[in-house]
Amino acid sequence: MGIEIERKFLVQGEAWRAAEAQSERLCQAYLSRDPARTVRVRIAGDQAWLTIKGQALGKFQGESSGISRAEFEYPIPLADAQQLLALADGPAIDKIRHRIRHAGMTWEVDEFLGDNAGLVVAEIELASEGQSFEAPPWLGAEVSSDARYFNSALSRLPYRHWTR
Amino acid sequence: MGIEIERKFLVQGEAWRAAEAQSERLCQAYLSRDPARTVRVRIAGDQAWLTIKGQALGKFQGESSGISRAEFEYPIPLADAQQLLALADGPAIDKIRHRIRHAGMTWEVDEFLGDNAGLVVAEIELASEGQSFEAPPWLGAEVSSDARYFNSALSRLPYRHWTR
Repeated sequence: MGIEIERKFLVQGEAWRAAEAQSERLCQAYLSRDPARTVRVRIAGDQAWLTIKGQALGKFQGESSGISRAEFEYPIPLADAQQLLALADGPAIDKIRHRIRHAGMTWEVDEFLGDNAGLVVAEIELASEGQSFEAPPWLGAEVSSDARYFNSALSRLPYRHWTR
Repeated sequence: MGIEIERKFLVQGEAWRAAEAQSERLCQAYLSRDPARTVRVRIAGDQAWLTIKGQALGKFQGESSGISRAEFEYPIPLADAQQLLALADGPAIDKIRHRIRHAGMTWEVDEFLGDNAGLVVAEIELASEGQSFEAPPWLGAEVSSDARYFNSALSRLPYRHWTR
């Protein structure tokens, strides 16, 4: 088990596309979308994982920042993952993850496809909740605590169906 | 992935206790109790597993027998399992599983403890839905399709709270 401390932001404009990136296609779906215990199946190329995320544990308990979660990740056979996607609650989420280095940190820029096309978010993993970092110029508003942007929520209510 | 074909029965009386058995204590809880995609954490001694069960898949689809389910099982570290129990939806189920051989088949007799004390059920795993077997003398009514007896349901509404 690890503690994942992650902040999530909207991405403004298209300037991020000029950055050098390592990109991979991710397909993922949820066996549980309960925020207290999400269970995610993810496929990237010929690799697959089962990932469980909880709400904050231990010393983080009671904090409402929404950025620290317990995380458990297990590699699973690709064939299992493909069958688990079929068992999932709601359609799979399809996205391209672009890993972009900026000021010594790695940003994961998720470009959503399908029913979530048009949504681009950037996540950064931190070692502590208070860790500072330098924002890339294309970084928009923070949405770490906005449940609509949880991938588990995007599966149920995709971006294209949002009322804006 | 395997297909689990299992039938479940009540156990009558105490005669089953006279049978030779291999017994182990099991502690398990659920990250998802949705019958379409249960996610179970189980600890037996110093071993632990994450198990996902779906509703019938493929050629079983559409059948309503309730005895065939897709099953995916992964061993996980004991320390992870202990933390996952704390994330689970509802309290853990505590039981002693007695494996009893009868007429060439292995019966798993689950003697529930805690809030489910008093409940004893026997399960048999079959190679096909139509496979015949010889019932031990202590076998009672079949409850394969009775959702109250699903372990995932016993966690939410334990046997001691049933209206009988």
